[in-house]
This record gives sequence, C-alpha cells and structure tokens, in this order.
Amino acid sequence: MTNFEQWSGFSGRLWKEGVNVRDFIQNNYTPYDGDESFLEGPTDATNRLWGKLQELQKEERAKGGVLDMETEVVSGITAYGPAYIDESMKDLEQVVGLQTDKPLKRAFMPYGGIKMAEKSCEMYGYKPSPKLHEIFTKYHKTHNQAVFDIYTPEMMKARHNKILTGLPDTYGRGRIVGDYRRVALYGIDYLIESKQKDFHDTNRQGMRRGDFQLREEIAEQIRALKAMKEMAAAYGFDISKPAKNAKEAVQWLYFGYLAAIKTQNGAAMSVGRISTFLDIYISRDLANGTLTEKEAQELVDHLVMKFRMVKFARIESYNQLFSGDPVWATLEVAGLGMDGRSMVTKSDYRFLHTLVNMGPSPEPNLTVLYSSHLPENFKKFASYISVKTSSIQYENDDVMRPVWGDDYSICCCVSATQTGKEMQFFGARANLAKCLLYAINGGVDEKTGDQVGPKYQPITSEYLDYDEVIEKYDAMMDWLAHLYVGTLNMIHYMHDKYYYEAAEMALIDTDVRRTFATGIAGFSHVVDSLSAIKYAKVKTIRDEKGMVVDFETVGDFPRYGNDDDRADDIAVKLLSTFMDKLRYCHTYRDSEPTTSILTITSNVVYGKATGSLPDGRKAGEPLSPGANPSYGAEKTGLLASLNSVAKLPYELALDGISNTQTINPGALGHDDEERTLNLTHVLDGYFNQGAHHLNVNVFGTEKLIDAMEHPEKPEYANFTIRVSGYAVKFIDLTREQQMDVISRTCHDRM
Amino acid sequence: MTNFEQWSGFSGRLWKEGVNVRDFIQNNYTPYDGDESFLEGPTDATNRLWGKLQELQKEERAKGGVLDMETEVVSGITAYGPAYIDESMKDLEQVVGLQTDKPLKRAFMPYGGIKMAEKSCEMYGYKPSPKLHEIFTKYHKTHNQAVFDIYTPEMMKARHNKILTGLPDTYGRGRIVGDYRRVALYGIDYLIESKQKDFHDTNRQGMRRGDFQLREEIAEQIRALKAMKEMAAAYGFDISKPAKNAKEAVQWLYFGYLAAIKTQNGAAMSVGRISTFLDIYISRDLANGTLTEKEAQELVDHLVMKFRMVKFARIESYNQLFSGDPVWATLEVAGLGMDGRSMVTKSDYRFLHTLVNMGPSPEPNLTVLYSSHLPENFKKFASYISVKTSSIQYENDDVMRPVWGDDYSICCCVSATQTGKEMQFFGARANLAKCLLYAINGGVDEKTGDQVGPKYQPITSEYLDYDEVIEKYDAMMDWLAHLYVGTLNMIHYMHDKYYYEAAEMALIDTDVRRTFATGIAGFSHVVDSLSAIKYAKVKTIRDEKGMVVDFETVGDFPRYGNDDDRADDIAVKLLSTFMDKLRYCHTYRDSEPTTSILTITSNVVYGKATGSLPDGRKAGEPLSPGANPSYGAEKTGLLASLNSVAKLPYELALDGISNTQTINPGALGHDDEERTLNLTHVLDGYFNQGAHHLNVNVFGTEKLIDAMEHPEKPEYANFTIRVSGYAVKFIDLTREQQMDVISRTCHDRM
Repeated sequence: MTNFEQWSGFSGRLWKEGVNVRDFIQNNYTPYDGDESFLEGPTDATNRLWGKLQELQKEERAKGGVLDMETEVVSGITAYGPAYIDESMKDLEQVVGLQTDKPLKRAFMPYGGIKMAEKSCEMYGYKPSPKLHEIFTKYHKTHNQAVFDIYTPEMMKARHNKILTGLPDTYGRGRIVGDYRRVALYGIDYLIESKQKDFHDTNRQGMRRGDFQLREEIAEQIRALKAMKEMAAAYGFDISKPAKNAKEAVQWLYFGYLAAIKTQNGAAMSVGRISTFLDIYISRDLANGTLTEKEAQELVDHLVMKFRMVKFARIESYNQLFSGDPVWATLEVAGLGMDGRSMVTKSDYRFLHTLVNMGPSPEPNLTVLYSSHLPENFKKFASYISVKTSSIQYENDDVMRPVWGDDYSICCCVSATQTGKEMQFFGARANLAKCLLYAINGGVDEKTGDQVGPKYQPITSEYLDYDEVIEKYDAMMDWLAHLYVGTLNMIHYMHDKYYYEAAEMALIDTDVRRTFATGIAGFSHVVDSLSAIKYAKVKTIRDEKGMVVDFETVGDFPRYGNDDDRADDIAVKLLSTFMDKLRYCHTYRDSEPTTSILTITSNVVYGKATGSLPDGRKAGEPLSPGANPSYGAEKTGLLASLNSVAKLPYELALDGISNTQTINPGALGHDDEERTLNLTHVLDGYFNQGAHHLNVNVFGTEKLIDAMEHPEKPEYANFTIRVSGYAVKFIDLTREQQMDVISRTCHDRM
Repeated sequence: MTNFEQWSGFSGRLWKEGVNVRDFIQNNYTPYDGDESFLEGPTDATNRLWGKLQELQKEERAKGGVLDMETEVVSGITAYGPAYIDESMKDLEQVVGLQTDKPLKRAFMPYGGIKMAEKSCEMYGYKPSPKLHEIFTKYHKTHNQAVFDIYTPEMMKARHNKILTGLPDTYGRGRIVGDYRRVALYGIDYLIESKQKDFHDTNRQGMRRGDFQLREEIAEQIRALKAMKEMAAAYGFDISKPAKNAKEAVQWLYFGYLAAIKTQNGAAMSVGRISTFLDIYISRDLANGTLTEKEAQELVDHLVMKFRMVKFARIESYNQLFSGDPVWATLEVAGLGMDGRSMVTKSDYRFLHTLVNMGPSPEPNLTVLYSSHLPENFKKFASYISVKTSSIQYENDDVMRPVWGDDYSICCCVSATQTGKEMQFFGARANLAKCLLYAINGGVDEKTGDQVGPKYQPITSEYLDYDEVIEKYDAMMDWLAHLYVGTLNMIHYMHDKYYYEAAEMALIDTDVRRTFATGIAGFSHVVDSLSAIKYAKVKTIRDEKGMVVDFETVGDFPRYGNDDDRADDIAVKLLSTFMDKLRYCHTYRDSEPTTSILTITSNVVYGKATGSLPDGRKAGEPLSPGANPSYGAEKTGLLASLNSVAKLPYELALDGISNTQTINPGALGHDDEERTLNLTHVLDGYFNQGAHHLNVNVFGTEKLIDAMEHPEKPEYANFTIRVSGYAVKFIDLTREQQMDVISRTCHDRM
C-alpha cells in the first residue's frame, strides 16, 4: 500500500493499493443537503479575468468566429511554453494553462486530417505552413487519408448521400474522457509506474497483433504521461507527486485535461465527473483553515473559465452540423452513490454557481445527474439555475447508475462512460428516415437518384401497405446496420493507428471496456410515418422515373409525443429492431455496441438531405432533434410529450436518448419560485418513469425572435439556450438554425 | 483478354488474361544448349562506363568505404530527379536510373530507424539533417522505435546476449522480391488496374482488421505504382504501357527494381529470376534484326553494372555481421521448367559473361539453379566461370522445383520464393550452440552471467550424460523457438505498420503467400558437441559460481562432415527437432514457418558471443558458417564433406542450407579444362544426392594470405570470393574475417 504525505486526512485502503478514484471518493466525500446560502460571489480577480475573456470573445465574434489560429506549430502536449489569459494579470489566475500560446487561439491539429486542418486555416484567412503540409502528406499519413484509402464505394456513396453522417473520419473521434482526477490524486510518477506494471503484465507467450497493439499503446501512454510532467514544469509545477491541497488538485486535474485538448480535437472533449472529487480537497482545506469559501469559489470559477476557453479549428461543414462552436466540455454534478447516499456536495453548488458569477455560458456543458432522491434543496437550486439561465441539462442517474455505477462521466451530450474504465468508439448516426425511403424506393436515394442501398424490389403500389413496408424496411435496416458498423470499424481501426489518444488513455485503465456508440437520426419521423401508413391512408406520389418523391396522407393517425401507445409502441419497436441488428455485427476490438437517439444541431443538415416523408414532413425540412417528437406533433402538452419519450427503454439506447423542451416561463409559474418548484415536479415525474435525458429551456418564442433580430442587444451577448445535447449562445447559431429553434414547440401549457 | 501491340510475336493466352509472367515465359522462351562461342566482349561504352565506375569504387574505398551520403533528402521513389553514372557520358548508358542524385551516393532511409540512419551518417563524417531528425522523432515514428516500444525484457535480454541475432529491427527486413518483370511485360497502367480490381475484390461484408490492413496496403501499392511512372517520366520514359523491345524491357524492369531500392534498405534486396524472361525480348529483337548480339550483351552488361552500384548506408555493427558491403542483389540463371525443358537461354550465358566482360564482382549475387539435367555445355560454362572467378553460387533446382515451381527467385543467399506470388517475413537466426550451453547452465548466459533463458535446473554432474543433455536441450530449444517466433511476430507487425514495402508488394500478387523465415546458427558445433557427449567422455569445467565455462573431452567421436552416419544422424535430428518446434508456434499473418542453416559472415560475430563447446571449439572462436562442417572436422576430403551436408533434408530447411567450399585448383585438375570438368562432376554428384546449395571457391590458401598482406596489388582489386551466402571482394573483409576465411578448410584433395 502506498501512502503519500499529500493524502494525510484521507480515509480508505483500496484506492491506496492501486488506481481507484471511485473508492477514494466514496470514502472521503461529504454529502451536502443544505441550501445555496453559503455561496460566494466572484472575486475581483475573477471579474477582471472574465472581463478580459469577454473582451476577447467579443473580438472573436467580430472577426467572424475565430480570434487567432496557429499555422506553424503542430499541437502537442509540450508544443508551447507557458501562456496566460493576460500576461499582465497572470498572477491572478488560480488555474493556469492554455491550449496554445495565446488565449482563444486555435491550435493546428493535423493528425486527424491535414486537409481539414488546412481548410480551417484558409477559411479564416490564415496560410497553413507548407513545411507541415509536406510532413503530413509526404512523411506522415493522417487518419483521414487512411480511412479514405480503404473505404468501399458503397460506404463513400452512403456517406455522400448522408444516410450515414457525422462519421469521425476527418478529425478526432473524441468522446473519450480521461480520468483527469488521477493526476491530482496520484501524481504522474505513480501513474507511470502503474502503466509500467500493466505493460509488464501484458507480456505472455504467444502474443498476437492485438497484444502488440496494446503494448505499443501503453508505451505511447507512458510517453504522454512524461510529457504532461514536462508541460506542467513549464508552468512551474511539479505534478510528479500527488496534489497537496485544493489549488493543486484543481491545477493538476486541469493539466490532465489540457493534455487531452492539446492532442485531440474530437467533437466532444468532455471534462467528466470532477465536482465531488474536488470537493474532498476543498473540504479538507476549509477544515484546515487554509482556504476560505471565497477562495474555493474562485478556484472553481477559474477552472470553469478555462473550460469556457476551449477551442478547436473547424471547417464550414462542421459548423453547419454543430452550430455555435461547441466542444462538449461536459461536466457532471450530483447523482447518487451505489450505497444510496447523495453525492451532492457544496462544490456541486459551486459549479452551477459559476453561471451566476460569470453569467450563462454554453461551456462547460453542465449536466445534473438527476434523481428524485437528490436533496430537495439541491433540486430546487438546479431548477432555479435552469429557469434563470437555460444552461443546464438533466440526465437520469436512476437509470444510468445500475448500468454504469456511480462514477460514470458523460462523454458527449448524453452518453455515459465509467470514468477511467471505459472508452467509446464513437461514430455519429444512421438516418433511419432516409432508410425508410430507401426501403420504398429499392435503395435509390430520393434526393440524388443514386443507387445507394442494395437493389431490392421497390414498392410499386399506389398506396402503402403497412406489412409490405415493414418487411422491406427491416431488410433495408439490416443492410444499413451492417454497412454502418463496417464503416465505423474501418474508422476506428485507422484512428487507433494514426491518431491514438495516448494522453487520455494514459488516464484510463489499461484493461479498458470499449463501447461502440452508434446513433439514430430521424427517429420521430419514422415513427409517425409508420403510424400514418398503419392508421391512415398514404398515397405515393412518383416522379417521371417512378421514384416515390412525396406522399399524400389522408386521415388522422396517432403521433409520437402525445402519450398515445399506438404511436409510442411503434417507437419502441423501431428502436429495438435497429439495436438488435447492430448487436449482431462484428465490432472492432470486440467492443459492445450501443446506440443513441441524438442529433445535436445536425438535424437541420440531415433534414436538408432527406426527402418528404409519409408523416407530412416535406423534403428538406429539418428533422426533429434527438428523440424529440416531430414539430407540431405534440398536441397534448408538455407532460404528455415527456411521457411518450419516457417510454423508450434506456436499455435499448445505452448511448442516450436526448430530449429538448422549451417551456414558456408563464406556463411554468407566476414567479421564479413557483417556476422552480414546478420544474422540480416535472423533472421528478419525468425521470421517475425511467426517461433518460432532458434539456430544459425556460423562455418564450418572442425572446428568441427578438434575439434573432437584435443580436446586438447586450442582454443577448451571453443568452444561452439548450439545443439537442449541448448549450449554445443563441446568437452564435446560423440563421437557419435559429429559425429551427424558433419553430420548435414551445410549451405554453403543462 | 488484353492484347497490346507491344506483345506482337508473343504466344500464349493465360498471361494475357491476367498477370502471369511464368506463363509468358513458358510460352515464349527459347532453350539454348549450344556453347558460349556466340558471346561478345564489352563495347566501348561498357568499358568507358565501367572504367568510370571502377574509379569511383576506388575513390570509395579510399574514403573508408563510403563515397558520399545524403543527409537532407528522405529516399523515396520520386525523391530525386534523373541522375547518371557520368553526366558527360549519359548517352552511353543503355540502362539509366540511380538510387540518389549521384553514383554510389547512399540514400537517407529513416523509416526503418532514424537512429541507424543518423548513426550511419555520423560514422562517415556526415551531419544528418536536424529537420529530418525532428520529423522522424516527433511526427513520424519509425519501425525501430515501435519495435523497441513493445519488446519484452526477455526479448531484449535474448537479443543483447546474442542467442537471437540479426533481427531486422533497426532497418528494413528485406528479402522481398518484387516481380520486376511485370513492369516490362504489362506496363504500369495494367498493373494499377489489376490492383484496383483486387482492391475491389477485397470488399465484403463483415471486414475485420486484417481486411483493413490489406486494403490499405493495396492503396499504398497503387500509390507506389503511380510514383514509378513519375520516376520513369523524369528519365524520359513512359512506362505506363508494356515495353516494346529488349532495351525497354531491361529499362522498365530496372525501374521496378529501382523503386524497391529507393524505398527499402533490407539486408537482401534481390533482383530475382529475370534472365530467361529478358531473353524472350532479346530473341525477338535479334530475330527482327533490330538488335545485334553485341548490343544485347551491352544491355545485359549495363543492367548488371547498375546492380553492381546498389548501396545502402550501414552502421558499424551491421558491417561486422555482413562484411564487404553486400546488398544481395541476387539474380538467377538456368533451372528446369516443370515440363522438364531446360530454361537455360543465351541470356543466361550473357549474365555469367558479365564476370568476364567487366571482371569478377560480388554483385549481383549470381546464382545458378543447378540440375544435372542442365545442358552439358552450360554446366561446363558455369563451372568454368567458377574456376576463373569464384563469383557464383549453385542451388539445387531439382529439390526446389517440386516445392516452389519453376519461377521462383532466390530472395537472399539461398532462400527460394515464388516470384510475384510470395513474400517472406524474415528474421535472421537463433544460436543453437548457445542454446545448448543454456540447457547445461539452466538458462544462464555463459558469457555475461545473465539469466536469459528460463530458470530450469542446470546440469550439476561432472560428466555430461547424453540423455540428460538431450532432455534439457529439448526444453531449452522449446523456449527459444517460442521466444524467437514471438520476437519476429512483433517485428513483422511493426514493419508492416511503419515500413511497409509498397513498391515491392505492388509487383506481387495481392493474395500473397507468406513464409516466416527463421534461421539456425552454430549448427555443426551442436552436432559435434552432442556426438562428443554421446561417443566420447565430456567433463565439465566450472567457474567459482559453478557455471560450466569449458569442457574437457576425452576420446574420439564422429564428426559431421565425414560422411559418418553416427554424426550426420544427429545433424538431421537436430534440424527436425527445432523445425518441429517452430512449426507449432503462432506466426504473424498465419505465415508458414521455415528455417535455414545459414550464417553469412555473421558466424564470426556469433562466435565471439558464444562460450566453449564440448566439440572442442573454444570460447570466442568463430562458428563454422551455415551448414558447413566445423573447421578441422573434415578429415576425409571434399566428397565426404559434401555427402554429410547432402544428408540434411531440404524439406526441413526450406529457407535453405548453405554450404561453402574452397578447392585448391591443383586438387581440381591440372588445367582449367580438367578443373571445369571435375567441378561439373562434383556438382552433379552433390546435387543428385538432394543437397541444396554450394558456394564454390577455386583458389589456394596462399593466394588469400598474399591478398590479405598485399591488398594494393592490382590483381586483388576485384578478387572475389564466395562466403556463406554471398560473394565479396576479399580485400573488403575485415582482417578478422579474412583470418576466418583463411582458417577454413581448403580442400587439397577430393
């Protein structure tokens, strides 16, 4: 058993015998069921630094979304010397460390794809380095090049026709959450030793290529750990040993995360579940009298400020998919332990309180792990923050805990992974709405006319027959599931080969569990379309070549989102059918397939590429996001809508079921207190039914329209809303996406 | 069926329906059983160019073995523009193309290992580029780094203690022979189309990582083919289409080989079986009257001149292993077809005749595929060349043909591979002599005292008991075989990953057969030692720690090399035992394990690292090379020695059984005619017994001693001898190796 002096005052044994942060937390955290009255406002330092950052953000927006870009240096853990928000105020920064040499300057990250890195520079008027171009085309192949080397024509076609979308084949796959807490709790040297032991343990007779791969990965992880020490040393910190107090714990942890965002540019680069962990250090210092509440809040504010600064260089098509420059620096608070104790600590308040101290912000993507058994005070506080800022999301800890335990992190929008024990092979989504049209048209794409799917017999009848459609749809989904998984297998093989996440994986157990996260788009439209075919009369409208290009639906039919089992059963059946197909495909590294119903803001782009559907949605119109009912389908109020979504079994979509709702403040109550209370009741009711996720927005459509038309008003500068899976500054959305948000159902009644 | 106008006059169908060079040869070659009287001497152009090259070679030797080195450009197919032996004489060159921008200048090849590339530069006083250092340490990992990342401590120890040696972990593995003839016969465009078809054919449902690897490899092969076109275009040739005459055929073929040696630096970079193939083009042109015999010989001379110029940058330890700067540009002549026809053509004479026209030379490594059924005229001619130049080796086509067919190439010294259908995973050798000492000492190395092998019980008795030794030796060989194969599996996994041979594999079938070539060192000493233990009395001599460090052998015992079954049976048993152990190890990519008894000149270095043995060989003394009997063991003349070696079944050592013999001219006959005739008889007798290989030297020890002492004498400038597996200029050997050669048995009687 190891015992560092830095651990004095900490209890427990298991976590001292090997890396085990969960055991450390469970043995040492102090649940808090009091109210928010202890919270402190921002310090002068916080105000000054945040003020400076806001100036830079304003400048960034004025420059078209990017403040500065690197063109000469390849990003890496030790690529830059120390840098600060403002050199003249650097002593004010309680937590230091930037991605590059300047705040908000975007790094050059070519390993995922040199083309994307260069295109991004050019898009913002920067000239990428010819030297680096030579290196990453002539000497070092990138992930992107490798994937396109081996794609099949069928995959290329499916990708081009957008039945498969958001594939991580041009940049990092992301979604891997290093257990950054380990840096603080154990220090780097202990982690290196631990990995060296793992390396030793992989040594056996008869090793094969999988073993070689793993051994090389461990070697790269150890290299990354050593680089983290070097990076920290440049800032004047020795992170080889454990953190000795809260300030060091916050700093050490952040260095771990910083290593990740200096080396990877995945769409989602989550922070993980750090609040309860850090609270242990803060509590010890407060008890020792070496820290005040004001200082504690300042530490949290400064850490959060760093998370608000994370940036990646992106290209146009990426921004269209994921509008508003998100990075999914997702960070969780609350949840219950396996022993039933609430894991809410004062620091969970402190993290939510940053939205007050520094105003609303999309990042970090603050996530409440919800249970009706959380302390009432905390539930009320979270609801209050939602009502005031629309900046947080809720996920059902009661359904996740049995699957992932009590130390999981959300690795993107809604997807849980066991912290430090798991990684995801992530790969966006299959457009099941398009797949339905392929089933009808014999694999021909309704927008391009390409033969994308297999040449199965199309439907030739004038009116759609439910049984015929279901049979053909099943066969087409079978094709799609295999193609989808096959495509992702290639991507992940190449990502491991050319863009391995050494820094993140160094902070994850070597014997890692791997999930294979797929996703579904167009969910509600397929459900409603199948319902229309079953319960109404759907006539096909064909073009001159006989291809079905539109539908005429006569008669009423039940729609998903109204608590009507006739439609909701179709929804469950659809999900289970597709998941079963995924389940029996071979997945890379024998990972466990999961799926999500989650589209983020890509629903707009996906909708553009999808033809008219039997549910009445016209060609080109946005799909409804995530698992949300279709626009206009919800006729019976918020609760009925929530009930429908809650029927989807989490077990069938372990990667998450995203639901985004906007409630008019007036519908929620007469004043903030009443609204807070009512929102708590809504959340309790929704999640007690086993629903998984809810994005809560509290504002009316009028506010959105005003913000769209008057983005210059100061009150809209930080006006943040929840979209499918993340928060975003409304004024940073494209006009098209603003229109989409506005057109979504805003519930005026419960 | 394709039909190019360039093929006019050529017969056959199969080879027009898909890549099949063998079928082209069988349908079109003209066997020749006449004598050498048609041969022509060198042209003026040949004399001038070869004269220039000899000057450069002299200059090279004067500069310590290296004329010039690249430090700024990474070698690659298109890394350089056109270059010539002498710019002012470039019109004289019938075959053009250099590895770098200057003749004999060595390329910078970092992919196998940047350390080796840099060390080599520094060794000869060149300063390697800091920019390239950065690229190949920071951005692109090398094969060498990757292998050392994953080696186990046991492997490192076995390597360090030299029980495993010559592992290709710091440079290219070599030994892959592209079918360079394909470039001439089909042109690059056809080859690209063919590979594109293969790429298409690998597309199937449920692909796994092996499939992805293959698809990426094909993509890289196609890239390499395109680069070959570009390289040729720089020299003014369009190789997209087939060669239309002999000159183009020679040139196209050479461009294929040039691509290989611009991208890979394996120890052995063989040319393959090109003579009969080229003869078809030469015959057609001669028949057409578009070529004279003089011009035909000039083409062959100039092609051979190019093979004589191949150079790689090596380091000191490499030179110690493989003395005299060999590259194994092995090139075969003769052999029989599966239909029994002799494959000897006039061009087989022309290639051997280069040793007359331009004097003896170690490269290309000229190899006669021997059978007693070859035309008598050719057998005599080859023997005559041997008697005059000691520059050629013989391999038994009668034992190889049933295994490899009639279109195999020798990919290093003695190892056959089917041309264009096969590749080798090569990895030097296990020192079985050391392994015997490990068996006696419980896995402890007799030179370093390290515990290298497993801690099995050592032998504690004073006198060695045969049964006990055999039991322990068997267990230790079992360990060694598994460790050896496991080490090679790692090396080949990483070589594929970081240093894939795209240019060579582009000229090999996609559905390639892969052999896994291991090797044995110390063979004869183990045989004689086991014989001593069995038939004499071997007393152990121990150091103060009880480790056996020497032996005292009392009494006589039979020795391998005297046609005595008592010893020779032990030899066969030893080979079959080790091969059986290799046979049941898992080999990378399910390749087929083979072994060789072949040490090249490394027998000297291996011997240095090996302790005293029961056969009387003292610690540090050279091992006998390859399958040769031990020095001084052969007591009953050349024929008895050959008989012993011939008893080793080729089936048990499909990678080859190397035997090198030196015969005093006086013992062979009174004049060259008698010598020639007698040598033919020796070869017939030896190979008719099923022996595999013979290096033939015809000179006396006195000449060697004189050459060692007076290297400046002009007659020794090109004095070439056959050592184990290749030919070398005697004066280029280290003094130590010259001494070794001198001390070997020179047969003064038959």
